[in-house]
Amino acid sequence: MNRVFRLVISCPDRNGIVARVSGFIAQLGGSIVEANHHTDSENQWFFMRYEILASSLGNDLEGFKTQFSAIATEFNMQWQVNDSASPKKIALFASKESHCLADLLYRWHEQDLPGQVACVIANHEDLRSMAEWYGVPFHYVPVTPDTKPAAFAEAEKIVADYQAEVIVLARYMQILPPNLCADYAGRVINIHHSFLPSFVGAKPYHQAFERGVKLIGATCHYVTEELDAGPIIEQDVVRVSHSQTVEDLKRLGRDVEKNVLSKGLRAHLEDRVLILGNKTVVFNA
Amino acid sequence: MNRVFRLVISCPDRNGIVARVSGFIAQLGGSIVEANHHTDSENQWFFMRYEILASSLGNDLEGFKTQFSAIATEFNMQWQVNDSASPKKIALFASKESHCLADLLYRWHEQDLPGQVACVIANHEDLRSMAEWYGVPFHYVPVTPDTKPAAFAEAEKIVADYQAEVIVLARYMQILPPNLCADYAGRVINIHHSFLPSFVGAKPYHQAFERGVKLIGATCHYVTEELDAGPIIEQDVVRVSHSQTVEDLKRLGRDVEKNVLSKGLRAHLEDRVLILGNKTVVFNA
Amino acid sequence: MNRVFRLVISCPDRNGIVARVSGFIAQLGGSIVEANHHTDSENQWFFMRYEILASSLGNDLEGFKTQFSAIATEFNMQWQVNDSASPKKIALFASKESHCLADLLYRWHEQDLPGQVACVIANHEDLRSMAEWYGVPFHYVPVTPDTKPAAFAEAEKIVADYQAEVIVLARYMQILPPNLCADYAGRVINIHHSFLPSFVGAKPYHQAFERGVKLIGATCHYVTEELDAGPIIEQDVVRVSHSQTVEDLKRLGRDVEKNVLSKGLRAHLEDRVLILGNKTVVFNA
Amino acid sequence: MNRVFRLVISCPDRNGIVARVSGFIAQLGGSIVEANHHTDSENQWFFMRYEILASSLGNDLEGFKTQFSAIATEFNMQWQVNDSASPKKIALFASKESHCLADLLYRWHEQDLPGQVACVIANHEDLRSMAEWYGVPFHYVPVTPDTKPAAFAEAEKIVADYQAEVIVLARYMQILPPNLCADYAGRVINIHHSFLPSFVGAKPYHQAFERGVKLIGATCHYVTEELDAGPIIEQDVVRVSHSQTVEDLKRLGRDVEKNVLSKGLRAHLEDRVLILGNKTVVFNA
Repeated sequence: MNRVFRLVISCPDRNGIVARVSGFIAQLGGSIVEANHHTDSENQWFFMRYEILASSLGNDLEGFKTQFSAIATEFNMQWQVNDSASPKKIALFASKESHCLADLLYRWHEQDLPGQVACVIANHEDLRSMAEWYGVPFHYVPVTPDTKPAAFAEAEKIVADYQAEVIVLARYMQILPPNLCADYAGRVINIHHSFLPSFVGAKPYHQAFERGVKLIGATCHYVTEELDAGPIIEQDVVRVSHSQTVEDLKRLGRDVEKNVLSKGLRAHLEDRVLILGNKTVVFNA
Repeated sequence: MNRVFRLVISCPDRNGIVARVSGFIAQLGGSIVEANHHTDSENQWFFMRYEILASSLGNDLEGFKTQFSAIATEFNMQWQVNDSASPKKIALFASKESHCLADLLYRWHEQDLPGQVACVIANHEDLRSMAEWYGVPFHYVPVTPDTKPAAFAEAEKIVADYQAEVIVLARYMQILPPNLCADYAGRVINIHHSFLPSFVGAKPYHQAFERGVKLIGATCHYVTEELDAGPIIEQDVVRVSHSQTVEDLKRLGRDVEKNVLSKGLRAHLEDRVLILGNKTVVFNA
Repeated sequence: MNRVFRLVISCPDRNGIVARVSGFIAQLGGSIVEANHHTDSENQWFFMRYEILASSLGNDLEGFKTQFSAIATEFNMQWQVNDSASPKKIALFASKESHCLADLLYRWHEQDLPGQVACVIANHEDLRSMAEWYGVPFHYVPVTPDTKPAAFAEAEKIVADYQAEVIVLARYMQILPPNLCADYAGRVINIHHSFLPSFVGAKPYHQAFERGVKLIGATCHYVTEELDAGPIIEQDVVRVSHSQTVEDLKRLGRDVEKNVLSKGLRAHLEDRVLILGNKTVVFNA
Repeated sequence: MNRVFRLVISCPDRNGIVARVSGFIAQLGGSIVEANHHTDSENQWFFMRYEILASSLGNDLEGFKTQFSAIATEFNMQWQVNDSASPKKIALFASKESHCLADLLYRWHEQDLPGQVACVIANHEDLRSMAEWYGVPFHYVPVTPDTKPAAFAEAEKIVADYQAEVIVLARYMQILPPNLCADYAGRVINIHHSFLPSFVGAKPYHQAFERGVKLIGATCHYVTEELDAGPIIEQDVVRVSHSQTVEDLKRLGRDVEKNVLSKGLRAHLEDRVLILGNKTVVFNA
């Protein structure tokens, strides 16, 4: 993998943005290795993402930022530029079910996840040995109805201590308090075990079984204050039939869940996901 | 295709049903070419479907029925036995959109649909020439808020005149009155242009676009009095992205709709779909 | 659909191409509504496709061409710019099987195909009435081992008379002569009824059945002199099982074939497919 | 999960098999909870699989076997009956790549694999710590061109010592000697990293990249003496595009490989796979 700077921009749409940005990069001798654009014509909003070879810019991220900020101001851009050599730090929140956590830890361990797992925070002790085998610090933060505010304050402090930039709810099964959603807006990723907006809330596989659907699914989305209603990053489904029990649905669903979560998280870690309102633009490779 | 008798049974579960039924068929020298069983352990209900070579039973459907009825009574069965040489007659209900109607007419014309299209009933004239090219009688029955009861009485009379056994709502866009749903319970098949239970009701593609889902779908189901809530026969989805407009969703969705409808209808026509409560057992080949 | 000019470029890769092209368009006040780039790092080759709002360029295609040619020369580009208001003319080649032809004619009739069906050329009379119902001229050009050169000369003349720009082999079942492949290189599209490179040549469904594969597929590709070996545009598969006969495979395969062909053809008609060697770049929307 | 006896039969087709078998079971008071039949009309061969509640047969497997053998002889059956309470023992063969091994060990550890992992045999030491964390004995059996016969003799001895009934090549990357294939015919399961019969042999992802396919896949099959040509149990694919490198194909492929292998192995462990010639009947739930 070549080291790249990932420039991600969203701004009001108008003519000449691409010309201005690509002209600026050309002037610097920058070599663009991947480029994506999207115009949301309904909202008159423009999105772009460039991967620029770091070496072609002298590996000088700060210099690039300084020079680019004038253009950003001119076009009223929300923007960021990130260095692939500085992968995002991740805090994994887990409970008792291991499949999503195990999958993410494994991928990270195999250098197949473009991020850095900083810690696991769990409200049960069950998954401690798994985390520790991977050499990841495990923090047990129990949550009870009474201790909820204190527990989440502690969890948020741990996240901050590790300077984690993204929180992943790997089947965490607890509803985050509004302030945590707000503090990490666009940076908390959940996996919901249904094809949203079907089967919001608890026991979606039971709901799916009762309704008799012929496909079940999973949804990776950003967490917002409203339960299971945040911007969707990725979804997938698997076929089921009348012969499958709720237990079968759970088993088949686990594979979908972990695949969808790892795919959505990968997109986030590579700065491929841009948010506008309650929807996402996902610039897949 | 060999001529077969399709024996379809559902009854309270108990030991010995398969032995009794298969023993009876063996005694007659019947040759079973396809067999499916399912036990719904939650409801203690048993389902089975056999395809028996008609020639092995002397092509005598009525004789088989008479002899089998004693077993049926003994086991308290709901049952039917149908002759593949007498395909079910179909009444196709359509409106203005042609993709589902065109697909079903084409498949029937190519002898790729195991049923007999008897007539098209439409509340607009737009699709008359298409139906007539295929040699299918076209009945224009307009529906307005004022004329609704009379219009549906007329439509139901046409269906009865053709002795149609199944009604297919090929993007008909009108809500059937409760009495018609009741008269043809388990025999009215609809295609809904979403992945139910997501996006019930009007404009599902607009709803899907607004929610920002990453897959859109279609659902083939039996019509019941409650809108879009009947037993699901078949569903499928297709991947979409941020770059697709509502018009793109409609275009991509049309292909899913027609494929799901023809697949669900095929299953119904071959007596592969059994209903229990609000769910289906679908014995796919 | 807004009228757009589609600018499609491939050239040796070097820095500054995007900046130069987008700068040029910005200077003209051109509004880019869709943009795709790809760098083939193995071959050091660059590909791009822009959709530019025609009105933003004063609807002046010829003017744009003239002005752009200097840049094209400078960067050694293979390029074209096409007007969405001038859809490509299509010659459909068919034989006896109707599913692909029927599907394309239907889509074109519903204005769902971004091209213009100019004629049908067939080596059998079977599909004449279908073509004629759609108002498309039907040319019967029989092919026998003896008459092959003359027949293809006649077919090529018909294509030329209609000024057709793309030839679609809609299950044509004849092998085109090398000179026709050469004359229309990159413009003859075939649908092969297997998941290439598996099951090249005749009777792929029989081959698939014999091998006992669990998925069957179809491949849309450009025709080259070597049979079933040209650049692949699109592929898809469908699940099959031991219970399916060769006839079932054919039936299930027909749906895959027509979907894959129409999808691949749509991409070609919208100038989304670029060829390098024996591979394609497909800029899907 | 209820304890069941799995009765699996294949024999020449003739009338009355189902009646005889189900009648026999009914006589014993056996409760059939899952039933599948298949007739291969080409080869006039019949296949069936029953799951019978063990408790309904007094948990007496040996008694059932003794009584059933008369029927088996009468119908010239190949048959077995297995107890779900005695899961098959598995020997996992691995090399350096961990994704398939890790996936199977994880599933087994989570009691999500209906078998018993007995040991890991590997020709490299890389995966020792992973196996040992799961408490599975790890045997390092290096293979060099010179030591091949001795190495495989040692490996086969280890398999025999553990009384392993199935060998899984979890990306083992070595070609088994003919005698081992023969000794464990129908009991050695491989995962090949292509959609067979495309891309037999070495470096299938490179082959796929060179050919420019739009889907890549994986194939789970029984190993026979002929490389990558044994009976196929399960296959699946994933979509790729021009923008993906060989490394991307490998990464995407790993997920398909492990899913296909675990699905195929699960079917084998549950006695759902029957072999006839070079093809399989897979009775999926």
